Amino acid sequence: MKKVITLLTDFGLRDPYVGAMKGVILSICPDVNIVDISHEIRKFDIRQGAYVLAASASFFPKGTIHVGVVDPGVGTARKAIIMETKRSFYIGPDNGLLTLAALREGVKKVVQITNSKYMLPRVSRTFHGRDIFAPAAAYLANGVPIENFGPLLEEYEILSFSKPHVQKDQIEGEIIYIDGFGNIVTNIYSEILEKVGISEEDKIKILLNDKLEKVLKICKAYNEVKKGEFLAIIGSGNFLEISINQGNAAKKLNVKEGAKIKIKLT
Amino acid sequence: MKKVITLLTDFGLRDPYVGAMKGVILSICPDVNIVDISHEIRKFDIRQGAYVLAASASFFPKGTIHVGVVDPGVGTARKAIIMETKRSFYIGPDNGLLTLAALREGVKKVVQITNSKYMLPRVSRTFHGRDIFAPAAAYLANGVPIENFGPLLEEYEILSFSKPHVQKDQIEGEIIYIDGFGNIVTNIYSEILEKVGISEEDKIKILLNDKLEKVLKICKAYNEVKKGEFLAIIGSGNFLEISINQGNAAKKLNVKEGAKIKIKLT
Amino acid sequence: MKKVITLLTDFGLRDPYVGAMKGVILSICPDVNIVDISHEIRKFDIRQGAYVLAASASFFPKGTIHVGVVDPGVGTARKAIIMETKRSFYIGPDNGLLTLAALREGVKKVVQITNSKYMLPRVSRTFHGRDIFAPAAAYLANGVPIENFGPLLEEYEILSFSKPHVQKDQIEGEIIYIDGFGNIVTNIYSEILEKVGISEEDKIKILLNDKLEKVLKICKAYNEVKKGEFLAIIGSGNFLEISINQGNAAKKLNVKEGAKIKIKLT
Repeated sequence: MKKVITLLTDFGLRDPYVGAMKGVILSICPDVNIVDISHEIRKFDIRQGAYVLAASASFFPKGTIHVGVVDPGVGTARKAIIMETKRSFYIGPDNGLLTLAALREGVKKVVQITNSKYMLPRVSRTFHGRDIFAPAAAYLANGVPIENFGPLLEEYEILSFSKPHVQKDQIEGEIIYIDGFGNIVTNIYSEILEKVGISEEDKIKILLNDKLEKVLKICKAYNEVKKGEFLAIIGSGNFLEISINQGNAAKKLNVKEGAKIKIKLT
Repeated sequence: MKKVITLLTDFGLRDPYVGAMKGVILSICPDVNIVDISHEIRKFDIRQGAYVLAASASFFPKGTIHVGVVDPGVGTARKAIIMETKRSFYIGPDNGLLTLAALREGVKKVVQITNSKYMLPRVSRTFHGRDIFAPAAAYLANGVPIENFGPLLEEYEILSFSKPHVQKDQIEGEIIYIDGFGNIVTNIYSEILEKVGISEEDKIKILLNDKLEKVLKICKAYNEVKKGEFLAIIGSGNFLEISINQGNAAKKLNVKEGAKIKIKLT
Repeated sequence: MKKVITLLTDFGLRDPYVGAMKGVILSICPDVNIVDISHEIRKFDIRQGAYVLAASASFFPKGTIHVGVVDPGVGTARKAIIMETKRSFYIGPDNGLLTLAALREGVKKVVQITNSKYMLPRVSRTFHGRDIFAPAAAYLANGVPIENFGPLLEEYEILSFSKPHVQKDQIEGEIIYIDGFGNIVTNIYSEILEKVGISEEDKIKILLNDKLEKVLKICKAYNEVKKGEFLAIIGSGNFLEISINQGNAAKKLNVKEGAKIKIKLT
């Protein structure tokens, strides 16, 4: 079976950077399947990158090698790492970007990439995606054992989103992602809703900054409300989301990733 | 020969959605060639998606499986379908998105996807691209017969653009697409121009909302007029297009997809 | 080893154009690996396309076929060409787009594409990417000898960026690219800095339009200065770049590609 290498960066799609990474990978490992997850992560936004990686990585085949590069610390002492989990490999900077996805799968070992044999001959100051991470992914796909890349690491940066917590009849959570449709993804997963007795078809109060914003039904489809109207829904990541049917909820409510949200049964 | 699966969606390229679809496909059918047609369709714009799919699908090899997801009705009773044509397969929601392309190729049969064996184990409320359409495409590429996915459908949503019609010396048509260059693509195909005696090199009057906008030559190349000047040209889809040499005609004329257009010989 | 065909265009990612090119290629040569370098080149900006192609092409495997389409002269007498270099092939319009990359690798021969056997049956006025360049790439990948496509060309359009020149203690250069991060890439390569005695850790004066703009240290990493502060750095193309740590230097300085820049030691 052909190996899969995925790429997630904040490089955008106009610059030569993504192409250069793919060229490097194919030069080392010609028979790999390179798949873009996203190159449109908000620049330097490690949390957003971590979310998008975690929300898609688990759908890839076992053994997939995920390369993530959102790397404001490039060129500094921050380490370059390979994380091996129970089902995949993650390669990128040691700044938390990879951990949200990797921890979910169960981390087996983490290695710091120090062996220059598996880097480009000349490592630039500014582009370790091309010079370190892409070659590491390609050599790993070629079957180089993870131990050959460098020493085992016991500690690494961990990034995680806050957990929602239940307070009597209400749940306090956080907005962890706003997608391109303007859907507001919270960290409130469906099982915690059940705990406070909230289920589909119920109406809930939504509070932002402790101010009541909306009373919304938890719908089974966007189309249950009229076009342009708000609704709540259990989204594709199994989290509670606030949406507008065929509209942009985040713009309308003027909220941002990281904001606090409270919900309670009406 | 390796199977090809194409993807067309309104998901954009930042979110985890396209990556998740590709991961699902490769998990089921590791040896397929996944090709992006477009993920930048205007959100919820089924007509625009239908145009882009129809304008590119016929260039793919016979047997290609096209997945289209512009799906404002996700989660409702709208059906999930596979259309088999004389040269390809189309998978997506039954909302017209697929029919413009499929009808051109000649539809052989249409099946509703109901067999949960060919879906992800847990089908979400909001993301059938990942949970139903991507797995269906991958299983189809694996050789599962179309009949296994569900019952044959006799009726399905049809979306088609209006046909241009000839009135003595003038043709009434419609703007069916505005591309990223600002080229205004009409539904007036070259053969209908010949019918009213219009051919390349001729000058034609262009009317928008019954108001004379421009008198333009039908050119053989953008560069036949000076930079910044309007021209008419038979575009790559064999339709009459209004353009500006190295400029944006749609912005300058402030027109939108769906607007009526009339042309006549000067 | 699987052949690689790369694509670089100014088509953007919404329109059917990139998909159509890929479909054409796969119809002729099903077993090729198609890789996008960029489709977001500024429309009609041959220089920007040439830079991005040159900055990524050399990282691809030997024998890679690069297709470049930034083609304001499509449909005119401008030629369609294939350039064979010591390590790759370049296919596109004869307008300079390909030469920056090709000349670096050493041009072996250049052929004009005239043989209609290797084009689509119907060549449109406006889309030679699909009708001429994509099929040429696919047939070349299939092993058709370059001579079969048409006559050898002795002359072709050359595009090159100006060379920086040294004047006593200062270097006069040019801004050749501004990337998506706002990094300002100059044509001042690291070796020429050494010539005037400038090395990493030094402070240099930056003049735009002969006006002193900044005194900056040549850093080893963006993070050597505080977030939001300017720095100079040797970038990934081995050129001097002006940046802001986690900010957009080009916006802040309001400079554009093509502008002159002078630097001198403080």
